[in-house]
Amino acid sequence: MTDAPGIVVTGASGRMGQMLIETINASDRANLVGAIERPGHGWIGKDLGEMMGGMSSGVIVTDDALEAFAKAQAVVDFTSPAASVDFAALAAQARCVHVIGTTGFAESDLKKIGAAARHATVIRAGNMSLGVNLLVQLTKKAAAALDDDYDIEVIEAHHNQKVDAPSGTALMLGQAAADGRNISLENAADRARDGITGARERGQIGFHAVRGGDIVGEHDVLFAAPGERIVLRHVASDRAVFARGAVKAALWGQGRRPGEYDMLDVLGLKEN
Amino acid sequence: MTDAPGIVVTGASGRMGQMLIETINASDRANLVGAIERPGHGWIGKDLGEMMGGMSSGVIVTDDALEAFAKAQAVVDFTSPAASVDFAALAAQARCVHVIGTTGFAESDLKKIGAAARHATVIRAGNMSLGVNLLVQLTKKAAAALDDDYDIEVIEAHHNQKVDAPSGTALMLGQAAADGRNISLENAADRARDGITGARERGQIGFHAVRGGDIVGEHDVLFAAPGERIVLRHVASDRAVFARGAVKAALWGQGRRPGEYDMLDVLGLKEN
Amino acid sequence: MTDAPGIVVTGASGRMGQMLIETINASDRANLVGAIERPGHGWIGKDLGEMMGGMSSGVIVTDDALEAFAKAQAVVDFTSPAASVDFAALAAQARCVHVIGTTGFAESDLKKIGAAARHATVIRAGNMSLGVNLLVQLTKKAAAALDDDYDIEVIEAHHNQKVDAPSGTALMLGQAAADGRNISLENAADRARDGITGARERGQIGFHAVRGGDIVGEHDVLFAAPGERIVLRHVASDRAVFARGAVKAALWGQGRRPGEYDMLDVLGLKEN
Amino acid sequence: MTDAPGIVVTGASGRMGQMLIETINASDRANLVGAIERPGHGWIGKDLGEMMGGMSSGVIVTDDALEAFAKAQAVVDFTSPAASVDFAALAAQARCVHVIGTTGFAESDLKKIGAAARHATVIRAGNMSLGVNLLVQLTKKAAAALDDDYDIEVIEAHHNQKVDAPSGTALMLGQAAADGRNISLENAADRARDGITGARERGQIGFHAVRGGDIVGEHDVLFAAPGERIVLRHVASDRAVFARGAVKAALWGQGRRPGEYDMLDVLGLKEN
Repeated sequence: MTDAPGIVVTGASGRMGQMLIETINASDRANLVGAIERPGHGWIGKDLGEMMGGMSSGVIVTDDALEAFAKAQAVVDFTSPAASVDFAALAAQARCVHVIGTTGFAESDLKKIGAAARHATVIRAGNMSLGVNLLVQLTKKAAAALDDDYDIEVIEAHHNQKVDAPSGTALMLGQAAADGRNISLENAADRARDGITGARERGQIGFHAVRGGDIVGEHDVLFAAPGERIVLRHVASDRAVFARGAVKAALWGQGRRPGEYDMLDVLGLKEN
Repeated sequence: MTDAPGIVVTGASGRMGQMLIETINASDRANLVGAIERPGHGWIGKDLGEMMGGMSSGVIVTDDALEAFAKAQAVVDFTSPAASVDFAALAAQARCVHVIGTTGFAESDLKKIGAAARHATVIRAGNMSLGVNLLVQLTKKAAAALDDDYDIEVIEAHHNQKVDAPSGTALMLGQAAADGRNISLENAADRARDGITGARERGQIGFHAVRGGDIVGEHDVLFAAPGERIVLRHVASDRAVFARGAVKAALWGQGRRPGEYDMLDVLGLKEN
Repeated sequence: MTDAPGIVVTGASGRMGQMLIETINASDRANLVGAIERPGHGWIGKDLGEMMGGMSSGVIVTDDALEAFAKAQAVVDFTSPAASVDFAALAAQARCVHVIGTTGFAESDLKKIGAAARHATVIRAGNMSLGVNLLVQLTKKAAAALDDDYDIEVIEAHHNQKVDAPSGTALMLGQAAADGRNISLENAADRARDGITGARERGQIGFHAVRGGDIVGEHDVLFAAPGERIVLRHVASDRAVFARGAVKAALWGQGRRPGEYDMLDVLGLKEN
Repeated sequence: MTDAPGIVVTGASGRMGQMLIETINASDRANLVGAIERPGHGWIGKDLGEMMGGMSSGVIVTDDALEAFAKAQAVVDFTSPAASVDFAALAAQARCVHVIGTTGFAESDLKKIGAAARHATVIRAGNMSLGVNLLVQLTKKAAAALDDDYDIEVIEAHHNQKVDAPSGTALMLGQAAADGRNISLENAADRARDGITGARERGQIGFHAVRGGDIVGEHDVLFAAPGERIVLRHVASDRAVFARGAVKAALWGQGRRPGEYDMLDVLGLKEN
């Protein structure tokens, strides 16, 4: 494992941080070489393995990101917009790949990240799951290939604690379908079909939000025409897929030219 | 086939009438012995087979229902409430089994049918599909067995010309779930989940109406709890299932005591 | 929580033991009052909570089962046949409900458990998932209601490390279908359909074993006839469902007459 | 409809010929201008509409293909290899688009069709369904994007009269997956998983053939990794989709340069 790229995880004590650490530890293609927490956090100066309830790991949690980044080939970062903007600058300084799974950036944040990306390789995506990113591309491709004899519906299912409907990923898939068909999602979306609705309007994109149990996240994109249907389905059964996507991105970024990339680049799915 | 029960079909020229005729002709357990149309209809006095675009069948279409019923063991009837009420009286007079797939009866109609059923065997159901009727029973049973850790959602899909949502069968399944759980469907139903909804309310029964292509009719009843799910699904791929259910009912009714029955009786699914 | 039944978990340090402990701790209808390990185990005499990597819980792990059982209302036990036979005698002595999820008993073991059940309430099942047990019953019921126009196929999916095919639960579902239809599963089973097979034989029950990723366990029972299909599906997404079933059984057993019960009793699904 | 391309159907009295005729008659983008049957067939010289059991259509069935082709813009042809080879030469002579849905060609047949395609536009495909052809492309794309952490399984379902397993389309999808992954399907295919199989071998492509009722044809391609799955599904519910694909191909071919094309060209899915 000596040759495997060294990776630093930010927000090491959080739910996503822990998942990233476990994912890297389980991989033989990456080494965990650093763990960052915010100044004043109880884990600072302690052994990461022990803090996680296991054996000593030799990795000491630190709040000095630049020093940690300088010894690493990549940083994987699911924190907050403010923290990620700071990390972007430091990663650029340390010339290490910065994988950003943080969401909720303002335009001004994105500009700062863009500036950092002139000197460093930045990979950023709202959903790090390989499967979802692939499904977005396949959806766009299918929608472009099929005319509107094929009625499009997006059906998603999530756990009963989810507070919004439809899911962000469902909307992303609906957007991909609308892009493929070259129409506006806003005009086409039908999000509440109930009562005497009349026949379905041609060109609509319907959304359905099933809620129940502890379903992690499932998405179907249906294309239904007379006599045939295509369904493109993604099932997430473990939030670790987001961590795996992030680590894959960190490895993919090694040796890339500086710039901003997303998961479609990582997957080789970007089209011209 | 001499011993197979003789069946009369009403509304012989209609879409459902034709399907019933084809179903009986394809069965070796039933004989088509009569075909009824309303007085003045163009088929009256003509050979049924020829009217349907084929060879002579020996069955002459008639508007004299009583005479036709008198030679038969059963009548299968998907017409209108007014016609079915009249047929019920005539079938009772002829002592032949009356299978009624007609829907939309008023209370006063049902009383008249009930009166006829004192002298004849009447089998009536809003959905003659064996599968749907079985699913209704299984849904009730599952809902009774599972507490409300199991979130219930009903997802149905139909063709894009359907004008109402959710489907009548979806509501029937939702009602079965509510009955099994001993709650009111009206209070529990959630038929339009969209936007910032907050967490799912415990005990709710959600409905989703997918519309696309020429889907004949599909219904899923989902019971989702932490760690596991049950899905009870029915898929209708051919409207002939309704005809097959009706013929099965006609055969089942042979030799039964007078009274009103439904498809749960035919299936042997009725519980005490 | 003072009034909630007190439960002892055997094999407390094992994978299933830990899951049981977490399940009881998360429930407000049950209290964890004891934890058993075998004599000589490193946890004996230590605080259970601390051993599990958390805070002190006040429950000290012990190898004195009888003393622990004497203070409890139920014991939940997923260990080995030999251990469970011993625990059955002790639970009978302590008059506490014994829930047994252990599998692999010899006939002689079962006799000993039967003897214990003359004095105590024993609930034993090869699969403690409520959902799977319910599905077994629904499958039997559906198979009994539908004639062999309905072709039956069982499709299961599991993770890529599973070494046998089809799964034991798939066979249990196939057996339920065969029972409902009053035929022999051995004669009806078709477990490897490949090549020029000829038309499907009427009455067959087909099996299919999908393997991939980390799928916990999914089972479909398909009943397919001309024009319609029923699918009864179970999806397990978390092995904790087995723990939840066991705790439910422990609660259900409170106040029952001595005897042997299974999960169908717990679910109220047993038929006469 | 005067401007819509005129289409000739070969094998007009057959099951697929009739379906093609109905499809063209139902379209406002194509005109039926000719119907071919083999010399000596009972329909020759008769009105097509009347032969089909309806009203006079003005199209007289003929065995003079060249004369019919000369008045048409396209011929749609689901017959036999020998007949299609002859039709290819005549269509080339008449400079009309030749859509070939016939299967089972020998290499020598294909050479003759290739020769005809130097002078005419020929569109040939083993499966004319738009959906299946699209799914083949999406499968290849997904297999190329995902490494073999993603276990691939192809699950198909067909009616109980189908004599071979797995279906040709399932094998076509498996081939697309193998192509995308750049491996040999022959080596990777696992077509009969039963008994003590051991863990799934990495890189395998599993096949499962469900048989039941009158299922027209359903295909799932599963990519299952730890924590997530993608499923690409096609459902054919009406054999008319093959006719619709063929008519779409005939329209697409208008004005194309001579050459051989397939449905991927028609769909705009062909990749460089």
